[in-house]
Amino acid sequence: MDETGKPTQHTARIEAFCDGVFAIAATLLVLEVRVPGHDAVTAAGGLWRALGQHWSSYAAYALSFVVIGIMWANHHIFGYIGRANHTFVMLNLALLCCVAFLPFPTAVLAQYLPSPEQRTAAAVLYGGTLTVTAVAYNAVWRYAAGGGRLLKRDADRRSVDAVTRE
Amino acid sequence: MDETGKPTQHTARIEAFCDGVFAIAATLLVLEVRVPGHDAVTAAGGLWRALGQHWSSYAAYALSFVVIGIMWANHHIFGYIGRANHTFVMLNLALLCCVAFLPFPTAVLAQYLPSPEQRTAAAVLYGGTLTVTAVAYNAVWRYAAGGGRLLKRDADRRSVDAVTRE
Amino acid sequence: MDETGKPTQHTARIEAFCDGVFAIAATLLVLEVRVPGHDAVTAAGGLWRALGQHWSSYAAYALSFVVIGIMWANHHIFGYIGRANHTFVMLNLALLCCVAFLPFPTAVLAQYLPSPEQRTAAAVLYGGTLTVTAVAYNAVWRYAAGGGRLLKRDADRRSVDAVTRE
Amino acid sequence: MDETGKPTQHTARIEAFCDGVFAIAATLLVLEVRVPGHDAVTAAGGLWRALGQHWSSYAAYALSFVVIGIMWANHHIFGYIGRANHTFVMLNLALLCCVAFLPFPTAVLAQYLPSPEQRTAAAVLYGGTLTVTAVAYNAVWRYAAGGGRLLKRDADRRSVDAVTRE
Repeated sequence: MDETGKPTQHTARIEAFCDGVFAIAATLLVLEVRVPGHDAVTAAGGLWRALGQHWSSYAAYALSFVVIGIMWANHHIFGYIGRANHTFVMLNLALLCCVAFLPFPTAVLAQYLPSPEQRTAAAVLYGGTLTVTAVAYNAVWRYAAGGGRLLKRDADRRSVDAVTRE
Repeated sequence: MDETGKPTQHTARIEAFCDGVFAIAATLLVLEVRVPGHDAVTAAGGLWRALGQHWSSYAAYALSFVVIGIMWANHHIFGYIGRANHTFVMLNLALLCCVAFLPFPTAVLAQYLPSPEQRTAAAVLYGGTLTVTAVAYNAVWRYAAGGGRLLKRDADRRSVDAVTRE
Repeated sequence: MDETGKPTQHTARIEAFCDGVFAIAATLLVLEVRVPGHDAVTAAGGLWRALGQHWSSYAAYALSFVVIGIMWANHHIFGYIGRANHTFVMLNLALLCCVAFLPFPTAVLAQYLPSPEQRTAAAVLYGGTLTVTAVAYNAVWRYAAGGGRLLKRDADRRSVDAVTRE
Repeated sequence: MDETGKPTQHTARIEAFCDGVFAIAATLLVLEVRVPGHDAVTAAGGLWRALGQHWSSYAAYALSFVVIGIMWANHHIFGYIGRANHTFVMLNLALLCCVAFLPFPTAVLAQYLPSPEQRTAAAVLYGGTLTVTAVAYNAVWRYAAGGGRLLKRDADRRSVDAVTRE
């Protein structure tokens, strides 16, 4: 409660919600890695070969897990932010909407990476989603840091500027 | 522990559980966005066109993500609530039961929005679920705020009334 | 850290893990509610009728959500517990293993409740899982409360006995 | 904030993220336990028999749940760790990437354990994933404990060495 008797927007709660979405999105990725059916195993001549044909699924899983993980790790810049307002919450939701969408382009990439005709489209979709996510990420940070709008009072100006330039 | 040696119902723990259900429900939405199969891609004449035919999936995903996100953000009114009792917990469970159900009408909407005959039914189902959710939301708040039943002692009466009128 | 320099087993962290499993299991239930396909809609003569044929899915979803929710709410008895040891953690894992399994008998019940021949088997499977879960729940509590083994020092004996008798 | 005005890397937040991934991965396991279809039930001569044919799914579910649960429980050694740096976060992400992948080899094991020809391959895949996970687990711990790099100052040296020898 602040002095006016309204509950203050706890950035800790927003951060916990973001962390939750990052963790769930990363863990859901594995659901897109399909188990080869009995027919596929027989056709491929054994389980190892059938599994090997899905190499793009494992690669896409690992890639997206690392991407989401690094985004989560960089998210520690939120430690500089001490307040939140309506616009900040909405920008954050837009960022989370992109992060939670990542399992879809990952699954498309996994399925169409081995296909020479569709490979480019799948890669462009994946790269495009990452680009939009990065733009949302920057929008959140620049809104919060611009003019020190939502920063903690003791945040080091030089470190904040270094993050903005990254 | 309160003075009688019984554990007090921590509203913080209820809030964390609610936040968890909101975050999981929002992130599960992406599982309903299906990857077009190889046959569909061939029939549509390329991956982009096949992806484009699923426009309603992306629209439904974004809509429901924003709806759940805004409900979560408004949930900060729980900051006014300082205590919990059995009825409050049960009303909250009813609310969460609605929120966690949202991925289903979202998937129905995604699949039947492009179909002229079924479009209305899908939209009514979606709108109906949202309405029931809003009713549950109001029931939780009105029960807690009615007569200041479960409010914190320092909660500002005017702000509370403003929330109730919303 | 306790006085011997070993990290104490935080019951708060165990409780958070339990809460997480309860919240995820409850929210995953919706994935078992299937969207009727275009063929089923045509065969049933409209989306409403096709949706109506899946009444058992909605009933099973609501039932299991409420069951998991009530188990979670009763879990506040953990507020009496102040310490944890290896056996307690293992008993808790057995309980969570049952809770996290519930979406499966729920899905079986949803699919075979409308089938007169298989209805009994599906209901027995569901009831059996709930019984095993209740046994695990009691084992956790009785182990912790037996002789006051893991209780907080200020826990009220009479309230604890009342929980045990429940 | 530390004295230079940079946010310190909270190990509590890393631990919460890890706990989340462990809880989600364990709870997702149940999605790989498939409900037998109406045809399979008719062919098997009843729901019980059809369910009985999927014994390997239940065994694989229980095995992996216990494995993830024990890894989570052992994770309390992180209580000794007081600081975090970039390498530590990256090693942790590699560990989580393995843990979150476990539902896949579990599903392969569930499907191919009853098949005499593919059984060995499925078991080797499962065991191999567990081995890689254990290696990542050790890498995280040894990096943090090596020379006391990231340990809390009051951590008992003898207990730490005992964990390392395990």
